[in-house]
Amino acid sequence: MNKPLVGIVMGSDSDWSVMEKAAKTLVELRVPSEVRVLSAHRTPEAAASYAKQAAERGLRVLIAGAGRAAHLPGVLASYTVLPVIGVPISGGALAGVDALYAIVQMPSGVPVATMAIDGAQNAALFAVQILALTDDQLRQRLLEFRQNMAHEVLSKDAKLNRTFSQDFL
Amino acid sequence: MNKPLVGIVMGSDSDWSVMEKAAKTLVELRVPSEVRVLSAHRTPEAAASYAKQAAERGLRVLIAGAGRAAHLPGVLASYTVLPVIGVPISGGALAGVDALYAIVQMPSGVPVATMAIDGAQNAALFAVQILALTDDQLRQRLLEFRQNMAHEVLSKDAKLNRTFSQDFL
Amino acid sequence: MNKPLVGIVMGSDSDWSVMEKAAKTLVELRVPSEVRVLSAHRTPEAAASYAKQAAERGLRVLIAGAGRAAHLPGVLASYTVLPVIGVPISGGALAGVDALYAIVQMPSGVPVATMAIDGAQNAALFAVQILALTDDQLRQRLLEFRQNMAHEVLSKDAKLNRTFSQDFL
Amino acid sequence: MNKPLVGIVMGSDSDWSVMEKAAKTLVELRVPSEVRVLSAHRTPEAAASYAKQAAERGLRVLIAGAGRAAHLPGVLASYTVLPVIGVPISGGALAGVDALYAIVQMPSGVPVATMAIDGAQNAALFAVQILALTDDQLRQRLLEFRQNMAHEVLSKDAKLNRTFSQDFL
Amino acid sequence: MNKPLVGIVMGSDSDWSVMEKAAKTLVELRVPSEVRVLSAHRTPEAAASYAKQAAERGLRVLIAGAGRAAHLPGVLASYTVLPVIGVPISGGALAGVDALYAIVQMPSGVPVATMAIDGAQNAALFAVQILALTDDQLRQRLLEFRQNMAHEVLSKDAKLNRTFSQDFL
Amino acid sequence: MNKPLVGIVMGSDSDWSVMEKAAKTLVELRVPSEVRVLSAHRTPEAAASYAKQAAERGLRVLIAGAGRAAHLPGVLASYTVLPVIGVPISGGALAGVDALYAIVQMPSGVPVATMAIDGAQNAALFAVQILALTDDQLRQRLLEFRQNMAHEVLSKDAKLNRTFSQDFL
Amino acid sequence: MNKPLVGIVMGSDSDWSVMEKAAKTLVELRVPSEVRVLSAHRTPEAAASYAKQAAERGLRVLIAGAGRAAHLPGVLASYTVLPVIGVPISGGALAGVDALYAIVQMPSGVPVATMAIDGAQNAALFAVQILALTDDQLRQRLLEFRQNMAHEVLSKDAKLNRTFSQDFL
Amino acid sequence: MNKPLVGIVMGSDSDWSVMEKAAKTLVELRVPSEVRVLSAHRTPEAAASYAKQAAERGLRVLIAGAGRAAHLPGVLASYTVLPVIGVPISGGALAGVDALYAIVQMPSGVPVATMAIDGAQNAALFAVQILALTDDQLRQRLLEFRQNMAHEVLSKDAKLNRTFSQDFL
Repeated sequence: MNKPLVGIVMGSDSDWSVMEKAAKTLVELRVPSEVRVLSAHRTPEAAASYAKQAAERGLRVLIAGAGRAAHLPGVLASYTVLPVIGVPISGGALAGVDALYAIVQMPSGVPVATMAIDGAQNAALFAVQILALTDDQLRQRLLEFRQNMAHEVLSKDAKLNRTFSQDFL
Repeated sequence: MNKPLVGIVMGSDSDWSVMEKAAKTLVELRVPSEVRVLSAHRTPEAAASYAKQAAERGLRVLIAGAGRAAHLPGVLASYTVLPVIGVPISGGALAGVDALYAIVQMPSGVPVATMAIDGAQNAALFAVQILALTDDQLRQRLLEFRQNMAHEVLSKDAKLNRTFSQDFL
Repeated sequence: MNKPLVGIVMGSDSDWSVMEKAAKTLVELRVPSEVRVLSAHRTPEAAASYAKQAAERGLRVLIAGAGRAAHLPGVLASYTVLPVIGVPISGGALAGVDALYAIVQMPSGVPVATMAIDGAQNAALFAVQILALTDDQLRQRLLEFRQNMAHEVLSKDAKLNRTFSQDFL
Repeated sequence: MNKPLVGIVMGSDSDWSVMEKAAKTLVELRVPSEVRVLSAHRTPEAAASYAKQAAERGLRVLIAGAGRAAHLPGVLASYTVLPVIGVPISGGALAGVDALYAIVQMPSGVPVATMAIDGAQNAALFAVQILALTDDQLRQRLLEFRQNMAHEVLSKDAKLNRTFSQDFL
Repeated sequence: MNKPLVGIVMGSDSDWSVMEKAAKTLVELRVPSEVRVLSAHRTPEAAASYAKQAAERGLRVLIAGAGRAAHLPGVLASYTVLPVIGVPISGGALAGVDALYAIVQMPSGVPVATMAIDGAQNAALFAVQILALTDDQLRQRLLEFRQNMAHEVLSKDAKLNRTFSQDFL
Repeated sequence: MNKPLVGIVMGSDSDWSVMEKAAKTLVELRVPSEVRVLSAHRTPEAAASYAKQAAERGLRVLIAGAGRAAHLPGVLASYTVLPVIGVPISGGALAGVDALYAIVQMPSGVPVATMAIDGAQNAALFAVQILALTDDQLRQRLLEFRQNMAHEVLSKDAKLNRTFSQDFL
Repeated sequence: MNKPLVGIVMGSDSDWSVMEKAAKTLVELRVPSEVRVLSAHRTPEAAASYAKQAAERGLRVLIAGAGRAAHLPGVLASYTVLPVIGVPISGGALAGVDALYAIVQMPSGVPVATMAIDGAQNAALFAVQILALTDDQLRQRLLEFRQNMAHEVLSKDAKLNRTFSQDFL
Repeated sequence: MNKPLVGIVMGSDSDWSVMEKAAKTLVELRVPSEVRVLSAHRTPEAAASYAKQAAERGLRVLIAGAGRAAHLPGVLASYTVLPVIGVPISGGALAGVDALYAIVQMPSGVPVATMAIDGAQNAALFAVQILALTDDQLRQRLLEFRQNMAHEVLSKDAKLNRTFSQDFL
């Protein structure tokens, strides 16, 4: 097993159903990663330590998912200069708008790259886009991933177009 | 000068125009306080230290004001069991709704007592209500403060009522 | 049975499913409390009386949960200088944003310490944080409560981290 | 001077710049009214007394304007069965959406007839529509008021239509 | 059967599940009413005729429920000076906020008395409050209705208070 | 089969459950159409080509449905001067508000005619209204469609009115 | 002067500062139009008549601008099968979101083609796109209009690119 | 002058007042960049070409700022696998929420790393964090940049703390 390049962190193990897509996409594109549960509020020192040691442990990108008053991505970003990608997680009465605002509206100086609400797969793909800048084989796999997506759309296009013509016309 | 019982903390000195009202109200009610600028994102370790040492330094209540992805109140609350009162500060495109959500939507386990957007005076009054539970003289001053407010309303009532009757009727 | 220190009030007994978490947390931390149903709109005089007599009855903190145009916390706060903690309760078309705004946006002079939407457990914990300022044994139990939360996160961290390594890698 | 039929109440004299339109419209339609400043939070007992005595004092309709966590209309409505018309007043970071929600989302049992944000003139007109149900002369004046409004629109229509044709074509 | 005093109108028969509460409350308080389906967009002329003839047909108050771009209450109000009470109906992606804004934000000159989203019972109660101004027996029934509501709250209060004491303490 | 005049395009085949209503309405009004799946993000060049060739292929109107950061209608509109009708599709944490804003807030110069969230039937009807400007027979069918809608409302009106009178009175 | 093909209607002459852009753009593209002030609420019958007679008067497209509870576009659309383009106009506490929702969320059956808030120029351009379907010369002018826009962007691109290189590098 | 590594693109030259902060921060950290005006809607082919050629022209990261229905970042991202950082630009009636949603809510497959509304400086810093992964000297400059920010906070802290003590106590 290779040393992880991407750390996937979440504030609670209940976030795993969303963040799992990030982990699976990294596996599919063969980028080694690790998965952690660290709470900005319940285990603030563990979260701070993780971020402070991330670079020297060989991590290149952090992905952090959190819901409600989602502080985890910003807290990690305040302790490292590695790129931190934030995933607002839906849930609760405000349906993820709270998490989106708490992640994306970071003040000048400490950015968090924010993905769509529950957009864990895109967090993984963005991490891959960063790593692919200096890894041609990974870039190749990413381009194939994109082509597969395009083919899937085109094949659905052909199918729906045909079905409609037959059924309705 | 007495040892401060309330710590008023803000993420940036530009928040002072709002947070000043908290400081002035504590002065008016003769509760000793101190004022600090500590950023959850730019000086995370200073913010953590401050909260960790607050209780043993004799502080009883923390008031924290912050805007946008306002993490400061939550970060302080994660390092202390002193009551933390959060003041969302308006500004920027989202006008303080971002700060409100980032402060009030704290996850179970680590509460922040949230005031209105820019509600710094109420933060001070709420700190006083806490301290007055075990300080009868302070409770007396607080009751007088409330009575003065009521009298001010009643006197405005009398004045507007009279003016309207004379001018319009 | 000890005399209650915390009054948990709600506008309707349908709010009990949310507010129950506040009551249970106080039981767990051995803080005596009482539970009341009082409506700011349907029984305004009962609500006013309750707040006016709360201090002399020995209550130290009030927790009030309400939904929609949630006036209960503010109405109680207008009749007492005890700290009032408000819990916006979700439900209805606006999903609790109405209750949040109606509780948190209190005018200067009469604060309500607002918790997250449906954040009844945090209301209890914040009441405990207030009471613990002058009760060392309670403070000790609160610190243990926090440590237990932290241990729970760390143990979930270890478990998910291990599972991911085994299942995916 | 006739005995007032409509009570115009506001939470603060700073609301007068908005509520003045209600007062002036009632004067214009010759409906006697009175103007009061009563705060649901700073003078809760005065507000309750006012509502409780309103009917026997001869008032028929109450108009209440308030901003932010606007409790005044609902508090008045909880103490009387006279129709209460609420005017959410804009201001502050939430621009009146807070006041709108805090007024319109009243629970079943105690209605408040809500007008547009800052819609004080419509509050007066709605009060007139209620009173005109049993006052034919008032109804006549109301119909004339509406006709004047319509004529004003038609005359602006003619003017703009003509100007455009001359200037642009 | 008495001649109807209140017209309950809705834009679609699918709104009946909400508006039924208005009809039932009027029946309970013995106020004669009629129920109509009239669409501001699909049957604009029928809606206009209904409003224009309402007063001479003996109706005193109109209650109009509508969802989404809810124009029905405003369209009715533009053709009559009878009081029109609007009920925003939830449903669709915007959950009734669209209907609320489309009803409450009426321009100066033509008011609609807006109730809570899905607040059909309050629409009926508000109609009763208007009619009770000149009907002492109805006023008496309304006061009893309110007292019953209050008793219901107080009895739930007693029950929950007792249950909690027994179960938890 | 006639050459299609309307192109119905969607970003994903999961949008078909909504967009199907557009297709069926066009079939019902006998306007030939075609159905396509083209993603602004996954197949940008196919989407661009489709729009660029639409006019010369004989299409007169494009209907485009998309969810979340809904770029498809705007991207099509940037490559053609045919009228483009956008349908924001609900789904995800923001329930379609994101799609609404991403479609309707087009900058000056490149309009998209935006329908209600999930308003696919209205997109078809609006396309018909455009085509009917120069097709009298289609205009006749459209007028009949509207009359049928009106009759449906009137017949529901009669039914509910009768049922209510019998059941409640 | 040619007979108008496009009717530009607004609810109040105060909307002219926004709607003027529509009128000017039609003049620039040489499409004859007329400008009217008609209020859905203050002059409902004049608005209805205008829409009912629009087609036989030779109008092909209606553009309607309105703010707040913006009913004008929907009211016009309910009386005609000509395409109606709606322009939500900003202003007031809700800044145009109310107008947007009140226009775009039309129920199935009666569409309004909604433009951006204050998007009057795009309303004109969309009307031109409709008319250009059967007017090749107009289509030519529209294509030139678009090319001019593109050239303007490209020239600003060149200028800013050059300035930046000189000033900063 | 070095070959640009970062392309700063905006939809209109009026966005320059915001995006200038990105350019200046890159200059300050000595990262070569270029500035372009390209509109997703007015010059779609130029925007597509720019993104398609970006990688082979040596660019490593794209920063794209856009307002309202902000499609530019997503359109660029659909034509390249370089990391694209999006900056929602405030302005107009929706104050940048429209731009935020249109940028951040990208569908699975094509991520855009979204910054705060008007957060152009953070876009530059995030680009630097990416480039610093493989450039130790840049990483050093970035760490110094952060330390300077921290020192600035600490010096403001000392100043405000002292001023408050002198002026108020």
